[in-house]
Amino acid sequence: MRVALAGLGVVGRSLLELVRDRREELLKAYGLNPRFVAVADKSGAVARATGISPHEILEQKRRGGITGIEGAEVKSGTLLDLLGELDIDVYIDATPTNIVDGEPSYSLIRKAILARADVITVNKGPLALAFPAIRELAERRGVIFRFSGTVGGGMPVLEFAKECARADTIVAIEGVLNGTTNFILTRMEEEGLDFPTALKQAQELGYAERDPTLDIKGLDTACKITILANAVLGMKVTLHDVEVVGIDGVAREDIVDALKSGEVIRLIGRAGRRLSVMPERIPKGDTLNVKEAMNAVRFTTQYSGRHTITGKGAGGYETATAILRDLISIKQRRLVET
Amino acid sequence: MRVALAGLGVVGRSLLELVRDRREELLKAYGLNPRFVAVADKSGAVARATGISPHEILEQKRRGGITGIEGAEVKSGTLLDLLGELDIDVYIDATPTNIVDGEPSYSLIRKAILARADVITVNKGPLALAFPAIRELAERRGVIFRFSGTVGGGMPVLEFAKECARADTIVAIEGVLNGTTNFILTRMEEEGLDFPTALKQAQELGYAERDPTLDIKGLDTACKITILANAVLGMKVTLHDVEVVGIDGVAREDIVDALKSGEVIRLIGRAGRRLSVMPERIPKGDTLNVKEAMNAVRFTTQYSGRHTITGKGAGGYETATAILRDLISIKQRRLVET
Repeated sequence: MRVALAGLGVVGRSLLELVRDRREELLKAYGLNPRFVAVADKSGAVARATGISPHEILEQKRRGGITGIEGAEVKSGTLLDLLGELDIDVYIDATPTNIVDGEPSYSLIRKAILARADVITVNKGPLALAFPAIRELAERRGVIFRFSGTVGGGMPVLEFAKECARADTIVAIEGVLNGTTNFILTRMEEEGLDFPTALKQAQELGYAERDPTLDIKGLDTACKITILANAVLGMKVTLHDVEVVGIDGVAREDIVDALKSGEVIRLIGRAGRRLSVMPERIPKGDTLNVKEAMNAVRFTTQYSGRHTITGKGAGGYETATAILRDLISIKQRRLVET
Repeated sequence: MRVALAGLGVVGRSLLELVRDRREELLKAYGLNPRFVAVADKSGAVARATGISPHEILEQKRRGGITGIEGAEVKSGTLLDLLGELDIDVYIDATPTNIVDGEPSYSLIRKAILARADVITVNKGPLALAFPAIRELAERRGVIFRFSGTVGGGMPVLEFAKECARADTIVAIEGVLNGTTNFILTRMEEEGLDFPTALKQAQELGYAERDPTLDIKGLDTACKITILANAVLGMKVTLHDVEVVGIDGVAREDIVDALKSGEVIRLIGRAGRRLSVMPERIPKGDTLNVKEAMNAVRFTTQYSGRHTITGKGAGGYETATAILRDLISIKQRRLVET
């Protein structure tokens, strides 16, 4: 399998480590042997038709930049140019999320689809802004488009939804889809902190980024709700269709007040008749009442009840495992077709 | 699809109702058109090569017994005899669980497999006693064997496990797998009841059967653990390999004592290095701390963390939906092969 990989942050590097360390097992169990024929990070892109080993990429990245990769048959340039020239089977997009215009991810995904490569992305930006357009383009070009790692990190949320919908219909989705905000709300609840102090604690512990806007304003959750609405409910919506309220307006008093009625406040994303993200009071015993940085997603079905899945919704190895899951699923589907 | 159905209890009747009410949708969405060419309950079995409509079966059942079904081409006898003579694609087993010898389910399943019919069962008995043997026989005869409804009712537990294991390895399974015992423990916890009183309440509300042995002695949970160990972890084990302790020895004091340390008592089934079912103290915040008759199953994976699914673990329509899920999955797999 000839792969182009963009993005060498935590997830991209975790993927390379998993492929390096699990090579034999992946080959034996799934016939999977990804060959990285092109790789790109912020510094640029390099390509080698015979493949660049994960070890070599990780080493060069550590030394400063992948553009230092040399040797026979090495081309360099922008990945956007290279994607048009190279013979690749799958493009893996592990670039950072940008919800303003989805770039550079959106253009790279489009280019890959046009070049008839299957696509795996963990980038929420292009999906939140243009899911219907990307899905349509992929269908028209006959390529497989996978994005398991965009929702729930390593939890197979989208695959679980597919199983819930087999022989049944999912009518609504609700969830706690952002670990950072849930961590902050849990700290406020359990330690009586106010919002700024809990945020600072989350930043110190590495749960929140230095610029926490996407998380605390509810936008990360809204991206995930948009993806679920399109992928699971078959809607055609973008981020702008979601009503979004963040947690920065939640006061200690609100939380204390909720606790008095046996409730907690959680940032709940909903997809169904309406799309929304907002802090809501839920009963303590509710399955969506997860603690710390955990995630929970609940599917309400027409016939078989309500099913909730909970787990860690982020993490480098977790999300990289979701990419592997997508790769294996592509491999298996392509195998059936040939 | 030519189907033989055994068992017209709540689940069997719910299945017939779903097929009757969703006929068009099932045909359109999945190409599924189950024709019941044989049906059996405690009173006997009848067969008609052209199919007996769900409506007709339900009506006759209401009037007293399906052996009253008459008309042209109707054969009657034991289902075991009929299974050898009829041309069927799928045998659906909705007979009641018997964990002593697994009969009559075990013989019916064997007979169906030998006649090269695909098999769906919601009966835990034969799986708990002879999973490895049934799996081997099915593989040897090239038939598909499905049992989604035996664990978690309508929750797609086994399918979820399959997704968790794609690109990853499940190393351990833990769960609250029996709604009756969880209901009793929750009542003891929240209302300060002792075990006999809580059991009586569960019986009055229809959560526990008149003979609650299988539930309260932990045997129902042990059956499910056996099924998960075989199906998900690839072990070759039977019910007798599970160390089982029921909840009938749990005293109010134990629960009060646990609560003092921020813990609750739940009947936890485990499959991993050891197989066990026993009341255990778990932290209140644990994802396995579900209330009332809810179920929860947690899969610990090697790379992508721990994923828990929670939901209602029983119910007629829920379990019947699991049978439909299995039927669709068989339909789709047979379609790929032809």
